[in-house]
Amino acid sequence: MHVLITGAAGMVGQRLAARLAREGACAGRPIARLTLTDIVAPPRPAGFDGPITIRTEDSGTAANAAALAALRPDLIFHLAAIISGEAERDFDKGYRVNLDGMRNLLEAIREESTRNGPYVPKLVFSSSSGIFGAPFPPAISDDFHATPLTSYGTQKAIGELLLADYSRRGLVEGVGIRFPSIVIRPGKPNASAGGFFSGIVREPLQGQEALLPVGEDVLFTHASPRSAVGFLIHAASLSREALGPRINLTMPGVCVTVGEQIAALRRIAGERAVKLIRRAPDEAAATIVKGWPTRFEASRALSLGFRAERDFDEIIRVHIEDDLGGHLPT
Amino acid sequence: MHVLITGAAGMVGQRLAARLAREGACAGRPIARLTLTDIVAPPRPAGFDGPITIRTEDSGTAANAAALAALRPDLIFHLAAIISGEAERDFDKGYRVNLDGMRNLLEAIREESTRNGPYVPKLVFSSSSGIFGAPFPPAISDDFHATPLTSYGTQKAIGELLLADYSRRGLVEGVGIRFPSIVIRPGKPNASAGGFFSGIVREPLQGQEALLPVGEDVLFTHASPRSAVGFLIHAASLSREALGPRINLTMPGVCVTVGEQIAALRRIAGERAVKLIRRAPDEAAATIVKGWPTRFEASRALSLGFRAERDFDEIIRVHIEDDLGGHLPT
Repeated sequence: MHVLITGAAGMVGQRLAARLAREGACAGRPIARLTLTDIVAPPRPAGFDGPITIRTEDSGTAANAAALAALRPDLIFHLAAIISGEAERDFDKGYRVNLDGMRNLLEAIREESTRNGPYVPKLVFSSSSGIFGAPFPPAISDDFHATPLTSYGTQKAIGELLLADYSRRGLVEGVGIRFPSIVIRPGKPNASAGGFFSGIVREPLQGQEALLPVGEDVLFTHASPRSAVGFLIHAASLSREALGPRINLTMPGVCVTVGEQIAALRRIAGERAVKLIRRAPDEAAATIVKGWPTRFEASRALSLGFRAERDFDEIIRVHIEDDLGGHLPT
Repeated sequence: MHVLITGAAGMVGQRLAARLAREGACAGRPIARLTLTDIVAPPRPAGFDGPITIRTEDSGTAANAAALAALRPDLIFHLAAIISGEAERDFDKGYRVNLDGMRNLLEAIREESTRNGPYVPKLVFSSSSGIFGAPFPPAISDDFHATPLTSYGTQKAIGELLLADYSRRGLVEGVGIRFPSIVIRPGKPNASAGGFFSGIVREPLQGQEALLPVGEDVLFTHASPRSAVGFLIHAASLSREALGPRINLTMPGVCVTVGEQIAALRRIAGERAVKLIRRAPDEAAATIVKGWPTRFEASRALSLGFRAERDFDEIIRVHIEDDLGGHLPT
């Protein structure tokens, strides 16, 4: 089959493309062809036998979406998005990429079907736990309402609704995946409000200082980038019958306090690493994080076979394996 | 103040315009001017001292929305919509009117503010209990998720999300009102799946036969057209502080079985009226109705002062007062 990934140059997109190329199959079907598109050129993954097409474009314009649909990929991973902070700063860009981009893709698929005969691809959509907004119950159930407190969360919630309606009408076979916090993100510290969730592990493992802007009692749900890729691939394997009409699913994760994150770091890298975490209380960051969801039941996802790590130790070990070559820097 | 009603030729729109014209005030402020727009000319309400502008147009196009926003109405009731059945039959029209119409209005308001100085109107949006989709708990709480099973419900749910995000950003002062079933609708029997909820009362009161396609145990929540208008007017009076960030509210109503509706008809119009209801079981209608929500907690709306009728007898009496001149036909 032909697999298309939008947003293929992103952190999760690159890893997804690499895994699909390496395994040469997805959802039990061999992959004959890969198309990777993003606003900057996605890297060409290694180890794939078939043709790989790299496209550098804004995949969300009506014209580009039509060109992608005309390729009639059997399976589409729609990951292209403006991230939370940028969607909040740039109102128009966020709506254009995150909302219009999704709608243009869905319309292009519908149009391709009308024009050139039945075409109903599997469409895996990366949504976010950002569709939820405080106040929250102790654990967010699968039937808790979406009341986002960001434009990003709004755009993702709308994407879910569109995907469900187009799926209900048989125009696509959609499944939406609400990611929890994905850590440990590789790379440099960044200015995002939740960056410290990765930073307080990533930097100390490299012998560098990390700032902790919030208290150790802050609770949050995490999964590794490897699990994020696993969620997407598992979603692609789910039948319409298994999913039913409620196709948007909250993913499981490891729900821990910052203190428990630090304890896991201590077990794996010792007190010397932990000592590199410097408390730097930041009222603004604490306020933002307070609006974010903490714990999910994720009952449906678990019963459908989605799996994250068992504990935060495992999330750190995955980071060491996938990003640090399998061993702690010396 | 200047009040704009879109969809002003509709059943609820006409009654809202008539009441605002009669009372000459809304939300404690005198009304200086009324603008009424719809795809067919809305009737000119009686008893209003100020100017009334009647516009016959598709208010949802970008150009018409811009023209309306340029009038800078202080209070907007956005009722314009394609109804459920038509939105299901005509995919493009439903999305164009119900989704693009809402987004064009919000964007026109934002643009007017940018162009000609701060403009943040109060915007009351008519949403629907159609945002909910089966299966349901015994009573739908205020934090139950929106998983619509129609394109209409999808478009209304998206409208709510947009309204909340534009409100959060201070671009409008929005409030969304999820109507329950509105009965007794005046006029002729129609082909809509839920038409019998009105028909089994309306027709017998006129000495005419009515068909009942479902069982007497079907449970549903209703309010009168008078209450629908009351919801909209009350919504216009709520402050941003009273509403908080969750601005979309499920309205209260009278939750009764079809059997209880019939018992109310018997109390008010006697056995002769009840005998005019003819059982005509219709599997298709029964299946559609089974997907609709039955009972709402509506706790927030009740605590914010929204009121529907106390029982179905009162809904019938409101119909007799408002649509039959205050007495049963002889």
